[in-house]
Amino acid sequence: MAKEKKLVEAITSMEEDFAQWYTDVVKKAELVDYSSVKGCMVIKPAGYAIWENIQKELDRRFKETGVENVYMPMFIPESLLQREKDHVEGFAPEVAWVTHGGLNELQERMCVRPTSETLFCDFYARDIQSYRDLPKVYNQWCSVVRWEKETRPFLRSREFLWQEGHTAHATAEEAKERTIQMLNIYADFCEEVLAMPVVKGQKTEKEKFAGAEATYTIEALMHDGKALQSGTSHNFGDGFAKAFGIQFTDKDNKLKHVYQTSWGMTTRLIGAIIMVHGDNSGLVLPPRIAPTQVMIIPIMQKKEGVLEKAEELRGILSSNYRVKVDDSDKSPGWKFSEQEMRGIPIRIEIGPKDIEANQAVIVRRDTREKIQVSLDELNEKVGEVLEQIQHDMFERAKAHRDAHTVTAKNWDEFKEAIAEQRGFVKAMWCGCKECEEAIKEETTATTRCMPFEQENLGETCVHCGKPAKAMVYFGKAY
Amino acid sequence: MAKEKKLVEAITSMEEDFAQWYTDVVKKAELVDYSSVKGCMVIKPAGYAIWENIQKELDRRFKETGVENVYMPMFIPESLLQREKDHVEGFAPEVAWVTHGGLNELQERMCVRPTSETLFCDFYARDIQSYRDLPKVYNQWCSVVRWEKETRPFLRSREFLWQEGHTAHATAEEAKERTIQMLNIYADFCEEVLAMPVVKGQKTEKEKFAGAEATYTIEALMHDGKALQSGTSHNFGDGFAKAFGIQFTDKDNKLKHVYQTSWGMTTRLIGAIIMVHGDNSGLVLPPRIAPTQVMIIPIMQKKEGVLEKAEELRGILSSNYRVKVDDSDKSPGWKFSEQEMRGIPIRIEIGPKDIEANQAVIVRRDTREKIQVSLDELNEKVGEVLEQIQHDMFERAKAHRDAHTVTAKNWDEFKEAIAEQRGFVKAMWCGCKECEEAIKEETTATTRCMPFEQENLGETCVHCGKPAKAMVYFGKAY
Repeated sequence: MAKEKKLVEAITSMEEDFAQWYTDVVKKAELVDYSSVKGCMVIKPAGYAIWENIQKELDRRFKETGVENVYMPMFIPESLLQREKDHVEGFAPEVAWVTHGGLNELQERMCVRPTSETLFCDFYARDIQSYRDLPKVYNQWCSVVRWEKETRPFLRSREFLWQEGHTAHATAEEAKERTIQMLNIYADFCEEVLAMPVVKGQKTEKEKFAGAEATYTIEALMHDGKALQSGTSHNFGDGFAKAFGIQFTDKDNKLKHVYQTSWGMTTRLIGAIIMVHGDNSGLVLPPRIAPTQVMIIPIMQKKEGVLEKAEELRGILSSNYRVKVDDSDKSPGWKFSEQEMRGIPIRIEIGPKDIEANQAVIVRRDTREKIQVSLDELNEKVGEVLEQIQHDMFERAKAHRDAHTVTAKNWDEFKEAIAEQRGFVKAMWCGCKECEEAIKEETTATTRCMPFEQENLGETCVHCGKPAKAMVYFGKAY
Repeated sequence: MAKEKKLVEAITSMEEDFAQWYTDVVKKAELVDYSSVKGCMVIKPAGYAIWENIQKELDRRFKETGVENVYMPMFIPESLLQREKDHVEGFAPEVAWVTHGGLNELQERMCVRPTSETLFCDFYARDIQSYRDLPKVYNQWCSVVRWEKETRPFLRSREFLWQEGHTAHATAEEAKERTIQMLNIYADFCEEVLAMPVVKGQKTEKEKFAGAEATYTIEALMHDGKALQSGTSHNFGDGFAKAFGIQFTDKDNKLKHVYQTSWGMTTRLIGAIIMVHGDNSGLVLPPRIAPTQVMIIPIMQKKEGVLEKAEELRGILSSNYRVKVDDSDKSPGWKFSEQEMRGIPIRIEIGPKDIEANQAVIVRRDTREKIQVSLDELNEKVGEVLEQIQHDMFERAKAHRDAHTVTAKNWDEFKEAIAEQRGFVKAMWCGCKECEEAIKEETTATTRCMPFEQENLGETCVHCGKPAKAMVYFGKAY
């Protein structure tokens, strides 16, 4: 039996069923496919190209601050994982265990890294001897495994791609500074490149990383009003250094423990891009991250000169932009909807009449605005429109985020806001874990972060009425 | 107890003990460290930066031919690995098995990918329906695991980094063409970028990849006369397609199996660079792959103006080359030996007298030649010298390879050549597996390849005297 490729089908509308809309988009935009390995995804070319652009841009920003890339083994012997108490408790329940190598059972089983703090610490304990060896500012790009029960492409899968930075410093101050520096790089990257506004802040004790002294986070708001933790940066103090014996001889000839940090961003960001910018026609990619920024679609391409003109324009534009021509034998309407589904920021329509008039039509993916432009000005105009799209996408996402950030001064307001899933709820909090847990229990909302930009919304905790210690962003989260 | 960093120690000379020389160089040049995970290595910044340059250059060449990058899961369910008979026999004895996820035993155990043919085939079987979906020219950059008993950094380790390309085509001819095309890209890359001459050819039936119809290889000769397989490209015909049911509806509306290829290069290349170019002072990196091409070493750096001048030169040179200044408080002599150990192609010495005379000294790493140059011409001269080094390194490696490639016309000559480990031995062969195995048994030499450039060295097999079918490169191999 012949298998025929199905026509592009309509995707579920996001108002009707946001989760199904998301699943439809990742499939129809050909970002991801399911695999025969339960909970693991195949990242297809259109998805991986976004990741490559994320990597390129982040890696460049990292290296400007002195980061060096390395590669650690993917396996962690069980005894090494157990070295830091909080850390093993946090991760052991969700790792995959290798028990056999070749035909033999291993003497000690190993897990596939869920994160590599223990490996970096083990290495640093051997590699760091003197203050001259500090700081170490290492990073690796790799995949990690966490044995999740429920999975969703990009957002939560058993294997995902990420970068993990691991640094060691001579002083606590330097470690703190590096932690914040990397958080700022993450935030700037999200806002400048992904057009995605984020709230920067600190995680509560309950929500911080297993083994960290403090965890900082950037939180973004998705179109459905749910929060997505989009990057984290951890200050370990000297906790891991003590557990792993990472010591150095300082300038004063005294033996001291190092201070450490780690920080990571993952393929989850692709999920964020989809859920912040997407619409009912599919993906909408910010120009700075889009693998293809411009799709030229010839109209009546069999007419003499049309394909040639399309190719000529591609040649001109491609020295400045990432441009393709869709010269397949599909109809123009079909090509339009594919370009929209894939979120390509601009399409250029060019047909015999346009050529005669020495013009083309630029269509913006985000607003669908059509702009007639003289071919003489096309190159410049495309640049302007891409910049405008990038700018407008950020402003729209920010307006949406701000419109879905509400203040709750008392418990009734809080419950109502969460029940309606308006988005972020700002409220005062007493700082007690019990209150945090009770709030989660009653509303399913969690503390997203204590933002760096604190506001005084009142003197008492929104839940228990005791004196407030901090203003917190709450929200339902992915 | 304070741990003090040891002084750089002399490395073993390669004439005395080549294996120990290799181990010393990878450690002292800080390319790699051993890890707590037996058989797995930590790739340190100096080593990983070489890999990043290899990746960048290969990836660019791949993409120029239409290759798209993707990412497949790192796990392979046992039943999937078993789908193609030869393939599972080739790999099952040397894989790592995951048996538990989180706290539960898996229903079916999975191996960590030793290579991903089975995953790509599984995916293609779902993803390919029509001739319109072809060709698929996918590649992934990842790590793979093979449970080796004896390991050596870069050359043979339980986990290594690589790229694996996997393609699917409508016709056998197209698959054959792609196989050869990628082999040529590998060969050009090795010769143009790594300054490493290679012999291109086909593997014998015995040495071909598990499941392939034909395996093509590039073979390089190391300084000690051993061969290193440096890249392979496999033509699968429709064998995997039949085992996995990868079919498409062709233009003639008939259902057909696809034809496939795969091809890979690994971190082993770093081992090749070391063993082709290194000397008794350490690593010697070809300029085109060197992470740092120029190290500026200030002399009497505490004298006023010296460090400033060094920085000024760095500023000027760094728009064209990868340049660093070693302004640490070590002595110049120490810095020289570190720069040599790390294989940085050029060092520039600049001190007060040089500054006064408006000149500097360029020292070539490969020949140690000193070149006095006016600062006005430094930028241009550095470019010339780097090009000259790249050129000379290739020519020297080629001269060494040619001087260590001998022809054996009879069995006595063959045995003598192999015993003296002169390098490649060219000889005629009858094409029988029995003869090939006997040769290996008696001499430990294996067939490296049947080169594309065949020569007629006689009419009979060097071992059995029966009619010869092909001229073969034999050698002891890593």
